[in-house]
Amino acid sequence: MKFNVFTEMEYQVGAASTLILSINALRNQHQTVLSEEFTISPYIKTEELPSVNGENRLIRFEVTDAELIKISYRATVDNCYKLVDFAEKPDIPVSQLDPAIFPYLNPSRYCQSDKLFRLAHNLFGHIENSFNKVLTLTRWINKNIEYLSGFSNAHTSAFDTVTEQAGVCRDFAHLGITLCRALNVPARYFTGYSYNLKPADFHACFEAYLGGDWVLFDGTGLAPLNGMVKIATGRDAADAAIANLFGNVLFTSMIVSCELAEGENFEPFYYNSNSTHGICYL
Amino acid sequence: MKFNVFTEMEYQVGAASTLILSINALRNQHQTVLSEEFTISPYIKTEELPSVNGENRLIRFEVTDAELIKISYRATVDNCYKLVDFAEKPDIPVSQLDPAIFPYLNPSRYCQSDKLFRLAHNLFGHIENSFNKVLTLTRWINKNIEYLSGFSNAHTSAFDTVTEQAGVCRDFAHLGITLCRALNVPARYFTGYSYNLKPADFHACFEAYLGGDWVLFDGTGLAPLNGMVKIATGRDAADAAIANLFGNVLFTSMIVSCELAEGENFEPFYYNSNSTHGICYL
Amino acid sequence: MKFNVFTEMEYQVGAASTLILSINALRNQHQTVLSEEFTISPYIKTEELPSVNGENRLIRFEVTDAELIKISYRATVDNCYKLVDFAEKPDIPVSQLDPAIFPYLNPSRYCQSDKLFRLAHNLFGHIENSFNKVLTLTRWINKNIEYLSGFSNAHTSAFDTVTEQAGVCRDFAHLGITLCRALNVPARYFTGYSYNLKPADFHACFEAYLGGDWVLFDGTGLAPLNGMVKIATGRDAADAAIANLFGNVLFTSMIVSCELAEGENFEPFYYNSNSTHGICYL
Amino acid sequence: MKFNVFTEMEYQVGAASTLILSINALRNQHQTVLSEEFTISPYIKTEELPSVNGENRLIRFEVTDAELIKISYRATVDNCYKLVDFAEKPDIPVSQLDPAIFPYLNPSRYCQSDKLFRLAHNLFGHIENSFNKVLTLTRWINKNIEYLSGFSNAHTSAFDTVTEQAGVCRDFAHLGITLCRALNVPARYFTGYSYNLKPADFHACFEAYLGGDWVLFDGTGLAPLNGMVKIATGRDAADAAIANLFGNVLFTSMIVSCELAEGENFEPFYYNSNSTHGICYL
Repeated sequence: MKFNVFTEMEYQVGAASTLILSINALRNQHQTVLSEEFTISPYIKTEELPSVNGENRLIRFEVTDAELIKISYRATVDNCYKLVDFAEKPDIPVSQLDPAIFPYLNPSRYCQSDKLFRLAHNLFGHIENSFNKVLTLTRWINKNIEYLSGFSNAHTSAFDTVTEQAGVCRDFAHLGITLCRALNVPARYFTGYSYNLKPADFHACFEAYLGGDWVLFDGTGLAPLNGMVKIATGRDAADAAIANLFGNVLFTSMIVSCELAEGENFEPFYYNSNSTHGICYL
Repeated sequence: MKFNVFTEMEYQVGAASTLILSINALRNQHQTVLSEEFTISPYIKTEELPSVNGENRLIRFEVTDAELIKISYRATVDNCYKLVDFAEKPDIPVSQLDPAIFPYLNPSRYCQSDKLFRLAHNLFGHIENSFNKVLTLTRWINKNIEYLSGFSNAHTSAFDTVTEQAGVCRDFAHLGITLCRALNVPARYFTGYSYNLKPADFHACFEAYLGGDWVLFDGTGLAPLNGMVKIATGRDAADAAIANLFGNVLFTSMIVSCELAEGENFEPFYYNSNSTHGICYL
Repeated sequence: MKFNVFTEMEYQVGAASTLILSINALRNQHQTVLSEEFTISPYIKTEELPSVNGENRLIRFEVTDAELIKISYRATVDNCYKLVDFAEKPDIPVSQLDPAIFPYLNPSRYCQSDKLFRLAHNLFGHIENSFNKVLTLTRWINKNIEYLSGFSNAHTSAFDTVTEQAGVCRDFAHLGITLCRALNVPARYFTGYSYNLKPADFHACFEAYLGGDWVLFDGTGLAPLNGMVKIATGRDAADAAIANLFGNVLFTSMIVSCELAEGENFEPFYYNSNSTHGICYL
Repeated sequence: MKFNVFTEMEYQVGAASTLILSINALRNQHQTVLSEEFTISPYIKTEELPSVNGENRLIRFEVTDAELIKISYRATVDNCYKLVDFAEKPDIPVSQLDPAIFPYLNPSRYCQSDKLFRLAHNLFGHIENSFNKVLTLTRWINKNIEYLSGFSNAHTSAFDTVTEQAGVCRDFAHLGITLCRALNVPARYFTGYSYNLKPADFHACFEAYLGGDWVLFDGTGLAPLNGMVKIATGRDAADAAIANLFGNVLFTSMIVSCELAEGENFEPFYYNSNSTHGICYL
């Protein structure tokens, strides 16, 4: 399905600085970027970095003088997903797991799965099928965590959120990842443009590695799961940040939008308590 | 009911130090210390400090030289408790609460009730009667927290325990206190000698302030609630520590025991899911 | 010296709630409240609670309906302080300390002195005189912690601030208290109206118990130490909060001011690196 | 230089479990494993996993029954290092850094560099040359953190250690990594066998990415830097653990040794305050 995505971000640069942005729609054999335009005003030369692990596209540039810069990105993207039936799909035990997946089992900066081991097992350890485990823990997050802007900050981690029980999409995603890993289900962070997310913003969700596929889940329930344009994945927000700023740079404002391309027909997809199929961005 | 309590503690003192111990059975109009003997070997002069708020008895002494000291305390105590019917006893709202009780509503070192506010309300906020609230949260602790020696340490707080879900009696008590305060139920830490606690040790429980009485609860379920000889109460373990050590002092060993006095007949009292009566040490 | 203090606070009450405010200037034998006026609009009956430990004055009231309430307090107060020479004043060892002071040696919610023990001793343990210790640690705080509005929140504690090194007056005070207690110097939180504080607000500082007096220190350096009108003291902000809200209450706005009364002549007092005298509010 | 390394580890397996061990000496173009022998008793079939990023070798095996297993590993290894002069070697700015290095700039589970940003800059930000920065922060760690067995645990992170100031080699390494990253110096965790480490054990150090080389540093100062046989590197101990256990497995005992091979002559290498050369394992 085709979407028109757009963002405009302003930064106040105070002295020579380097910025690395991850706002470009991922290009891979499944998601096609039909057209895109990235501009900085005033003009600055940028470099697209070779992707590490195919997880994201990074745009790097230096700002040499103090100035206000405006970045804008506009693209038309054909996203791509499949629905996979997990009703009878067997779990992959650690003894057969591809070593490339191991990093997504380990605790990370915002996802201290080692600390949530007992809690995750007490709450969800009894559920047989891993797809059902993740579906259930996602609903638990949705029910128990309050979406509250301004409550959490850039230091907030899943260890905080599981108890303080409020946050934004980033915090919901971190908690989902953490509970998965504590249950020996590999999981990673997903950022993207998101159709029908209100208020419009970049969105963060999480993917669980189930039966050989990365399946998308969203504890916030704020947007249809099939309206995502993938930007990046990573262990957590530390690896898949929208922007990494080195030097004296102040974020000042941002607009984000994601609209259906003309002529597209959208049927929103959400999980419910009887779901047997997971949605996989390829 | 009469109990013989005993403890023997050894400390290796490395240089001039001050120790403040809280191991003496509390004396008040309800708990009678029939006989007691406190000795230090080699002999050191001690001072019993005037109690602050009637919450505990403190023994202070200085050790001027490096040496191994052995403290022993032996007492026969008639404890005293009443059972109070909370089935229809109305809660005391904050608007009518005695200001002397306010400190037990505030968060403290090991009991960050401000951080557990949403969690406590999500889990227990729907329960009408406060006695039932505390009974239910105590059972929740008992079911979800694993009693595990060596898992936690002196820095561990309820914010850790609610997620890591393992600890010792001190951690169970801190979590109980924290959940109560988050629900606007005043609560405090209780230390004592405990009959039939296995393995024998000092015990920590918590008291909730319900309908004008301090009612005893124990998330560990390891000892009968009517076999306690009260030593101290306080906001948390920071205020009611068995020992406060100032200087160069190393704790090396300890024995604790609590036995029924001769001729006494003991019927263990525990709560169950239909309990309507709380146990109050007066 | 006489000051005119004033505050106006608005709360949006959503349902029946109880508020307990601590905004009235403390009355004691040293600080004289010459006149004061406390009003709520629309009118609500209030109750002044008997002070616990003489540490503060609390105003309690219930709001029964959803409404916007405006509280205003205005007073003229003669504050009182003395300067004490600590150049040669001996420290009071724990072995001679009044037990009523013990609570201010213990760790508390926002002041985890148990965790800062080694850090405090590494940084300040070598300084002989306790007044100099506290003066030095206050300067260290002033030099290393950045005053930054919006960085910290109501959950931030000294354990965070000592590493994250940014915060507001409350965080500076908590860190000062914590370092003192880690060095076996009793310390407590102080809130007040503060002359020449910019921007105008309630202020938080800390008092260290030195040679039998509570001496005032302020890591922020933002206001003269002799322009304070004391409101309350307590172990930390958990005990000496400006407002405790029970129910559905949202803080919406606040104005604070503290001006010299007519005809008064003010010479600002600050410590410097050669200070020998501490300032004590009595 | 050639070393004979050896370890023997025992695990009590309680039910079907998977173990992934990282105890084999790394094989790469610089470190030559002359001979090695890995055995499990009773016999279990093992699999050596293809290395991800060339960072380590992993041995995976399943234990199907409850039993006590003994693992032993013995190898003769020719390690390899070079000394690099950093006196005038220019730093690589982020604007020219290879994207494959980016993950080592990000905060990770035990290395919350985002939280130590101000502290690192206050302490070390003024030092010009990055090699000197890392040398200085390593000495700061050595001076301020106490090596203390049993103080920290598997959950302890650099955010704890920077304040609590005690721990073991793992904690020293995490703090070094964290301070580097906070200063925009990429850094990673290093585990190995270590000659002359007392008591004998696996050792953890850290590598900083300076002028295009990974340079080894050790805040503990407990072992010569040129006596290491590299096992693995990773972001922190979450990625480079000696053992990852999935299922019901209890670690019961371990022996580790690292001896000079016959005929070798060892001159210990340590940094001092005038060092200009870094040691790089290739």
